[in-house]
Amino acid sequence: MPRRIVVVGGDAAGMSAASTVKRALGDSADVLVLERQPWTSYSACGIPYWIAGDVPTLDDLIARTPDEHRANGIDVRTETVVTGLDLDSGKVTARDADGERSYGYDELVIATGAEPQVPEVPGADAEGIYGVQTLDQGAAVLDALEHDPKHVVVVGSGYIGLEMAEACVRRGLETVVVGRSPQPMTGLDPELGTVVADEMRRDGITVRSSETVTAFETDAHGRLRAAVTDQGTIETDLVILGTGVKARTELAAAAGLSLGVKDALPVDGRGRVDADRHVWAAGDCVESFHRVSRRPTYVPLGTHANKQGVVVGKNLAGHPLAFPGVVGTAMTKVVTLEIALTGLGETDAAEAGFEPVPVTVEATTFAGYMPGVRDMTIRVVADRPSRRLLGAQIVGREGSALRIDSFALALWNEMTVDDLMMTDLGYAPPYSSVWDPVQQAARRAASVL
Amino acid sequence: MPRRIVVVGGDAAGMSAASTVKRALGDSADVLVLERQPWTSYSACGIPYWIAGDVPTLDDLIARTPDEHRANGIDVRTETVVTGLDLDSGKVTARDADGERSYGYDELVIATGAEPQVPEVPGADAEGIYGVQTLDQGAAVLDALEHDPKHVVVVGSGYIGLEMAEACVRRGLETVVVGRSPQPMTGLDPELGTVVADEMRRDGITVRSSETVTAFETDAHGRLRAAVTDQGTIETDLVILGTGVKARTELAAAAGLSLGVKDALPVDGRGRVDADRHVWAAGDCVESFHRVSRRPTYVPLGTHANKQGVVVGKNLAGHPLAFPGVVGTAMTKVVTLEIALTGLGETDAAEAGFEPVPVTVEATTFAGYMPGVRDMTIRVVADRPSRRLLGAQIVGREGSALRIDSFALALWNEMTVDDLMMTDLGYAPPYSSVWDPVQQAARRAASVL
Repeated sequence: MPRRIVVVGGDAAGMSAASTVKRALGDSADVLVLERQPWTSYSACGIPYWIAGDVPTLDDLIARTPDEHRANGIDVRTETVVTGLDLDSGKVTARDADGERSYGYDELVIATGAEPQVPEVPGADAEGIYGVQTLDQGAAVLDALEHDPKHVVVVGSGYIGLEMAEACVRRGLETVVVGRSPQPMTGLDPELGTVVADEMRRDGITVRSSETVTAFETDAHGRLRAAVTDQGTIETDLVILGTGVKARTELAAAAGLSLGVKDALPVDGRGRVDADRHVWAAGDCVESFHRVSRRPTYVPLGTHANKQGVVVGKNLAGHPLAFPGVVGTAMTKVVTLEIALTGLGETDAAEAGFEPVPVTVEATTFAGYMPGVRDMTIRVVADRPSRRLLGAQIVGREGSALRIDSFALALWNEMTVDDLMMTDLGYAPPYSSVWDPVQQAARRAASVL
Repeated sequence: MPRRIVVVGGDAAGMSAASTVKRALGDSADVLVLERQPWTSYSACGIPYWIAGDVPTLDDLIARTPDEHRANGIDVRTETVVTGLDLDSGKVTARDADGERSYGYDELVIATGAEPQVPEVPGADAEGIYGVQTLDQGAAVLDALEHDPKHVVVVGSGYIGLEMAEACVRRGLETVVVGRSPQPMTGLDPELGTVVADEMRRDGITVRSSETVTAFETDAHGRLRAAVTDQGTIETDLVILGTGVKARTELAAAAGLSLGVKDALPVDGRGRVDADRHVWAAGDCVESFHRVSRRPTYVPLGTHANKQGVVVGKNLAGHPLAFPGVVGTAMTKVVTLEIALTGLGETDAAEAGFEPVPVTVEATTFAGYMPGVRDMTIRVVADRPSRRLLGAQIVGREGSALRIDSFALALWNEMTVDDLMMTDLGYAPPYSSVWDPVQQAARRAASVL
């Protein structure tokens, strides 16, 4: 009899796990995926660009449709909401258009993802307030834009907030970003965060920092009228929640599983939540191990979700494979400013027990004498006693952000700044400088240490 | 009494060594640099872009002038040709406008660089044949272009040949590239070399491969008339030598030092040629250690020259520092095609004793649904028993080449393709895919192994 594998959630992690195990086991596995929405395997990260108009249609964001997965032998049930997990008897209860029923499993994969953090303030359920985590939320924002709003308040100044602010200002809306932190992109050290705030203002975005939304006001018809903060009232037609996400783990918690950092599910390297009861998890609902701080962390990103899904799928198929953790790499863009970071900032590094020494260098995207060269600022943090690189942050123009990969790989391999300075990175005048910007930063750090 | 340090050669390696030791030792070192040309610290790599018209003037290619170095306390003598090294008595003989004289030293740094490989064929000294290694050669080509030539033959199809072919075709010349290898860029595996040749033809460049220049014909006035090959005669007004370079080590050999790979000087990790007699060397005249093949190699590149110069300077100042070797990273561009490689190709890997398994993947520069996305082809070679990455090659459109840095750092750290596949590289739709192209290639290799 084939093994019955039930996957809760059909986006990156869930479908990667399902596809990987099905490909490996074929007919000896029955793979059932239960997904709340009508879609599978889509790019949530692409939603801001869909709203901005860069991506023409919803379909462009779908990497693989339910039918394509079905053609690969996976039983995908969309618009099916899981309502309960019974881990002792090995059953999942779910509701679809035909009612509620339960599915028995030999192995359970929880890939329930994340949901927008909705501020718990009066009026938060008003019409006109949208998250941008799922395709239906994205479609709802696009519908709202059809009614030609003039003003938008983006709540939150992390990368989702920034990308949505760009989308809105490019669509001609008066755009206000309200963030609780003293500057946009809290992951950035203040010096670089200020550069981002200045850029956003130059792009016509109103940036309100250190400001907390306390309520949303509606008119007599229940329509959104204004966002109220601890510093004033901002009239608006539309609110977009760019407040980050939280792990969607209510089901897991209700089933008695314990939660970790930011309510995410702790898993071992192979993605096991509860080995005895055959429970696995992957994606935006799980904790990750941070290879620099050596602590569990919560980093909901498609890159990790895909890899974690593959890891669970391989292990389900009997091929041991480990997810080795993260170093905290992230990238984003505001209009023409590229932003990227990896590893630990100064404060986080100190909290993790390091002795961080920060240095900042100004560099150019390639040889300074070439046409089209652009500026970038790189800040790196190194550990004084070990001379190890601990983190790097980049803010710059076109051609800056991808440099973060070199820093990420240096962190991954626990390189010192001295080592990194001496590596053999590519050079030609249209691409880099004879001392690559990454190495300029490492060299400065080595010299300061 | 201050230590007398004499540096032969005032470009990247020589001036890096001089500057580093002078900065560290100040008045306790007399640093004398003898340079054949009127310039110091210039970008030879920028010459093709100067000739193409991207870089306005010669001065733009000079990172630091002789006077700027003098202001830092370094005694720079330009237009001074070293004619002999006497290592036993610690003397250098040199000739300038005022005649010949000798300079005693406590420490000698040989940074004589490289020179174009001139084909040893009849007529090779004809007027109208130019190398492009030095600023005066670059200036000579620009002078020649003033006389409005119609045809150019570029001899050699390595990166200098390709960059010069681009410069010439962009200046409207009928451009023929003659290369001895079966395809341009011998470092590339044939599959990718073919892509380069096709691209060059599309750009209007005539590519003649597997063809060897046997002579240059001149007219009655000694002016170049044609390049003769083993396959025919190509009439031309101008010949550019893009045949690669050889280490300029005649002086060192004449002084009794033994030469290594391609006549380059063997040095230890600190840049010492002969520790007993206080002889050091750096830059395009020295061998490097290849960290993948574990063999000495010859890689004349500005990136290594700068680092090797710093290494020698630091050691001269009493601060131990090692040059850790190279992994063979190189990049170039032909019109809109980006080319990058690192590590070993299939043939070199087999020669070095590995069991190479090649895989090729087609990827895009970032998320496929975003506007402006471009194609790239990545070929990686991995070792079957150890699963280590051995090399990577990239050919693609704008945004492709810099990815080579991730592969270079993976090689540097001796990562397996399995490790590389699981690293935390940056992702956002305008920059990358959810599986980065680097990781797509690593993943394919892991699966094939």
